[in-house]
Amino acid sequence: MGRPSTPLLSSDVIAVAALRLVDRSGEFTIAQLAQALGVRPSSLYNHLGSKAEIVEAIRSLVFREGTLTAEDAATWDGTVRNLLRRYRECFARHPRLVPLVTAYTVSSPEVMGVYDDLAETLSGAGVPVGQLLDVITMCDSVVLGAALDLAAPDPGWDVDQARSPALIAAIQQAGSGRERSDRAFELALDLLVAGITTVVGGR
Amino acid sequence: MGRPSTPLLSSDVIAVAALRLVDRSGEFTIAQLAQALGVRPSSLYNHLGSKAEIVEAIRSLVFREGTLTAEDAATWDGTVRNLLRRYRECFARHPRLVPLVTAYTVSSPEVMGVYDDLAETLSGAGVPVGQLLDVITMCDSVVLGAALDLAAPDPGWDVDQARSPALIAAIQQAGSGRERSDRAFELALDLLVAGITTVVGGR
Repeated sequence: MGRPSTPLLSSDVIAVAALRLVDRSGEFTIAQLAQALGVRPSSLYNHLGSKAEIVEAIRSLVFREGTLTAEDAATWDGTVRNLLRRYRECFARHPRLVPLVTAYTVSSPEVMGVYDDLAETLSGAGVPVGQLLDVITMCDSVVLGAALDLAAPDPGWDVDQARSPALIAAIQQAGSGRERSDRAFELALDLLVAGITTVVGGR
Repeated sequence: MGRPSTPLLSSDVIAVAALRLVDRSGEFTIAQLAQALGVRPSSLYNHLGSKAEIVEAIRSLVFREGTLTAEDAATWDGTVRNLLRRYRECFARHPRLVPLVTAYTVSSPEVMGVYDDLAETLSGAGVPVGQLLDVITMCDSVVLGAALDLAAPDPGWDVDQARSPALIAAIQQAGSGRERSDRAFELALDLLVAGITTVVGGR
């Protein structure tokens, strides 16, 4: 009724705007975020009480974008592979987000649900509780590294600077783009699964 | 002789200043870098001709800080483990640098020398040329993910939000800080080496 219209704020609206800032510059501040949304910082705090909560809302948004849930496959390693493939795709679209999400505690129920599924699958496959979080940490590392690799431009290495004959041949044969990155990630999944089977009792 | 003193610019001086900006904000611009060094942008270009060259100078600096060279161990996997341990330490000190270095081609001779050593070691261990770059890419992923993990604050997961009994027990037993992160990384190295041995013919 004649008042200036104010945007309808929600946790998701804030997360979308913050993610846009991170994609562009690798970071966001509360001041930038308030400006981007045309609101006062205090209005943000009515929805998300801290930078940590905003980062967690972004992580939750990105996981939801990828419908990141554990689908049951016929085997435990099929389930793990499917989950990690989707997880990689999510973060390949937002590579600058990687060091932000690793710097904050996982706490949202949606995101924790993914780790619940991964933990139950690995535990059911025989990974002992005492090594379970270490294996999950390795899964995170492989996926986030592979997401950065998928987001990276070609070439990864300047072959003209290499001296190792094996490396020179490997770079020349490796191909490029998504095909190269996907093949490297699929081999990483093979190595991960083989490692789980031989080292920590996965079966 | 009465002229305002100008800083003695070099590639290393530029890289140190750019790394400081990245550590603080996750990014640098040429304008910010010139301002931080008290010079004009054109003076930077006399030493490093593009943002890509500056990123590569930072990567080279960080690798040198960690005296990142392949030391011969008694076994191929000992050599790989030592190299990847040092590589992780380098980037754990500069987590915000991770998505920047992965976004640019490896081209400096010092940095390429590390990949030369890694390639020769893995090749000597029986990894076929056709899978060599994929294995190296996985090594990069594991290390950079583990560096981000080491740089992260505790806890990684809010146990109160977990529902999986296995995950709850795993989080409660995992410990914290460097001890937790180091143990996870050492297990990751075990899984990586086991995977190389069983999947791609390392021996």
